[in-house]
Amino acid sequence: MSKIPHRLYLSEDQIPKQWYNLRADMPEQPDPMINPATMKPATVEDLYPVFCKELARQEMDSTTRYIDIPEGIREMYKIYRPSPLCRAYNLEKALQTPAKIYYKFEGNNTSGSHKLNSAIAQAYYAKEQGLKGLTTETGAGQWGTALSEACSYFGLPLTVYMVKVSYQQKPFRKSVMQTFGAEVIASPSDTTEAGRRILAENPETGGSLGCAISEAVEKAVSTEGYRYVLGSVLNQVLLHQSVIGLECETAMEMLGEYPDIIIGCAGGGSNLGGLIAPFMRDKLSGRHNPRIIAVEPASCPSLTRGRYAYDFCDTGRITPMARMYTLGCGFIPSSNHAGGLRYHGMSPILSKLYHDKQMEAVTVEQTRVFEAAVEFAKRETILPAPESAHAIRAAMDEAIRCRESGESKTILFGLTGTGYFDMTAYSSYIEGRMSDYIPTDADLQRGFDGLPKVD
Amino acid sequence: MSKIPHRLYLSEDQIPKQWYNLRADMPEQPDPMINPATMKPATVEDLYPVFCKELARQEMDSTTRYIDIPEGIREMYKIYRPSPLCRAYNLEKALQTPAKIYYKFEGNNTSGSHKLNSAIAQAYYAKEQGLKGLTTETGAGQWGTALSEACSYFGLPLTVYMVKVSYQQKPFRKSVMQTFGAEVIASPSDTTEAGRRILAENPETGGSLGCAISEAVEKAVSTEGYRYVLGSVLNQVLLHQSVIGLECETAMEMLGEYPDIIIGCAGGGSNLGGLIAPFMRDKLSGRHNPRIIAVEPASCPSLTRGRYAYDFCDTGRITPMARMYTLGCGFIPSSNHAGGLRYHGMSPILSKLYHDKQMEAVTVEQTRVFEAAVEFAKRETILPAPESAHAIRAAMDEAIRCRESGESKTILFGLTGTGYFDMTAYSSYIEGRMSDYIPTDADLQRGFDGLPKVD
Repeated sequence: MSKIPHRLYLSEDQIPKQWYNLRADMPEQPDPMINPATMKPATVEDLYPVFCKELARQEMDSTTRYIDIPEGIREMYKIYRPSPLCRAYNLEKALQTPAKIYYKFEGNNTSGSHKLNSAIAQAYYAKEQGLKGLTTETGAGQWGTALSEACSYFGLPLTVYMVKVSYQQKPFRKSVMQTFGAEVIASPSDTTEAGRRILAENPETGGSLGCAISEAVEKAVSTEGYRYVLGSVLNQVLLHQSVIGLECETAMEMLGEYPDIIIGCAGGGSNLGGLIAPFMRDKLSGRHNPRIIAVEPASCPSLTRGRYAYDFCDTGRITPMARMYTLGCGFIPSSNHAGGLRYHGMSPILSKLYHDKQMEAVTVEQTRVFEAAVEFAKRETILPAPESAHAIRAAMDEAIRCRESGESKTILFGLTGTGYFDMTAYSSYIEGRMSDYIPTDADLQRGFDGLPKVD
Repeated sequence: MSKIPHRLYLSEDQIPKQWYNLRADMPEQPDPMINPATMKPATVEDLYPVFCKELARQEMDSTTRYIDIPEGIREMYKIYRPSPLCRAYNLEKALQTPAKIYYKFEGNNTSGSHKLNSAIAQAYYAKEQGLKGLTTETGAGQWGTALSEACSYFGLPLTVYMVKVSYQQKPFRKSVMQTFGAEVIASPSDTTEAGRRILAENPETGGSLGCAISEAVEKAVSTEGYRYVLGSVLNQVLLHQSVIGLECETAMEMLGEYPDIIIGCAGGGSNLGGLIAPFMRDKLSGRHNPRIIAVEPASCPSLTRGRYAYDFCDTGRITPMARMYTLGCGFIPSSNHAGGLRYHGMSPILSKLYHDKQMEAVTVEQTRVFEAAVEFAKRETILPAPESAHAIRAAMDEAIRCRESGESKTILFGLTGTGYFDMTAYSSYIEGRMSDYIPTDADLQRGFDGLPKVD
């Protein structure tokens, strides 16, 4: 190849045929989940009432290195994958950097984000098990949209509990889910006990992700043939998202490249975990030594300022507990515009790797994030999601450092999605109405005070 | 290639190096534009005050078969082109049709539509001429967005007059343009004489495309170093859009296919004209004989129910007159949700070809269009723009006919863009609030009564 193209698309037969399970190559495993009812490590059977069986098995499987992707899943992957690996020539030129900047663009589907990679897998296994339907919650709406799309494809009913304030502020997100046939319910609602209780206490509440999770789980376990699904944090989700990293690896090999720095935004960790999977494998084995950087919002800094402790995955305290970097499940993040990064914890796999100093983490303030988003949009003709723009910001900062040092590093970042439903946030930035919020130590202490006592 | 992939991406070096000028192969030319000041055929010099020089030359050039695409334009094309040629396997399966359905997807860029192909060319030539800025109008917003993006890339100031009712109803469209640095003004405005006059007469008006054109042209001719640009109808625009058809031709050749039926939605004709260009050349030369079908909204049926007559291109009656199929520049289309198809006329090139029976035209009602849009979104993971969904509807109808007749035809349609900013329309459909409107003969007669007298 004479010159590296702006966008490299692999061929359809280069879509991975197996997911890569990073846990199989980790020298030490994340600590096991704990069942809060018994305070003992959760078993796969403990998960069956909530998750469908194959997904429960994948959640617990830390030894199988490669797991076959069923043909039914690959068939749907083929409609929008492989996603392109892009060389940001125009951004490089604008930054006057000697660095080479690559990004993997996952927003090229109706859901607008990488979430579809796991949504398809989860809907497929639910259908295979003969389930009658699924429930989930959504905040910003990317996960709800992706799952609506997947369930529509496999002909599976879906009920989405959407945080009421998002339901009201993002009516178009709701419409997309409804277009794909999902039932979308503003949470808290009168369809569950949890919702009715919260409404009785506070009829005017705008809801919360924690409340929506509680409603979705209650609905799933109380409806015959239904299960609950989740779009991030879980090991199974990181497994499915490994398609991102595996495609990157193949594309980079074709280009004769290897990244010196790999950057991803991190909320629950699904995108970052998928993107870095094969590169972290290389790092753990000593074959390569890339820097791997998680980017968090300054307003919700779970890795950089959180505790490595057992905590609930939801604010309703009904899920198993996982050991992870957390701000405490009672921590209420400020209304940062990157809704997908407003989560108190972090994937246990990524938490363990960070704890073992295999990766770094940085925080960025949202005004600097939107500054980067606008610059990127102008240069690369993609309007990034605010979440993705966290990675753009960090990649630009590294590229600027290269300009100053004269180093020609190869930077790879994950562009997880598009920002078409985030124009309120863009308007706020363009009109100078956006502010930054960084929690004080006292704010964080209140979250830590609510951590469950384990051991 | 063992099997045709779901999405075929050409390589970067397969992006066309020349545009194809269909006029050079037409046995008869469209009638010349008429300058309303002289009532004589417009000369290229007549156009210089409004259009930049190279674009004026392209507008008048009916003999040069291939025109080189400058490297500066190709450099920006490379960020988002080649666009994929997709095989709609899932839609075929859902329709149980023996037909093969292909679509060329042009929505894979921030502007969300094919409009960017011409916006880049127009902004490039303006910059090359040393102009200080551009003006344009936008209705639905796709053209304004594309031009904002192109002007931002080339560092050229842009003023967009946006129909006031769209400005108010589509604030997110406005925000995207502003993100790319465009000045967006609700039309009518107090920045032009035309605007002030209309506001004085009717302060509460929501504006119209005709009024916005008048404001944009006035602003351009009254501001030193400014010119006006237009996103459809013109010969130059069809020329630039020929990249769509040329890439289709290359991709189809690689697959060993040739379309039996080619379908595109038609408002001003830019997408259809670009898509069909090389296939119409084959048809005119007798090498192939594909059916070529323009799809119009039943509410704005310029080809199917209009007159082939000289008319103004704008409702303000300030542009040159073109001979085209028209409903009369005073015709006010109903508020169909496909804003990009609400235009009274049709490209003079396409009008001539239709008049000479080289292509067909059909109309579809908008509820049937949205039925097709939702089905397509579920099967193909792309949320189509309402405009594009007109072509989907017609393609589905042809595929269903194939099911009934047992014929395995090859259908190609243009998927011009995405519908992320059209969720109000989708909601209206999903909630059963959408209605169809078909103008009566009396409605049409009022439009015809306003046609200018020529000869």
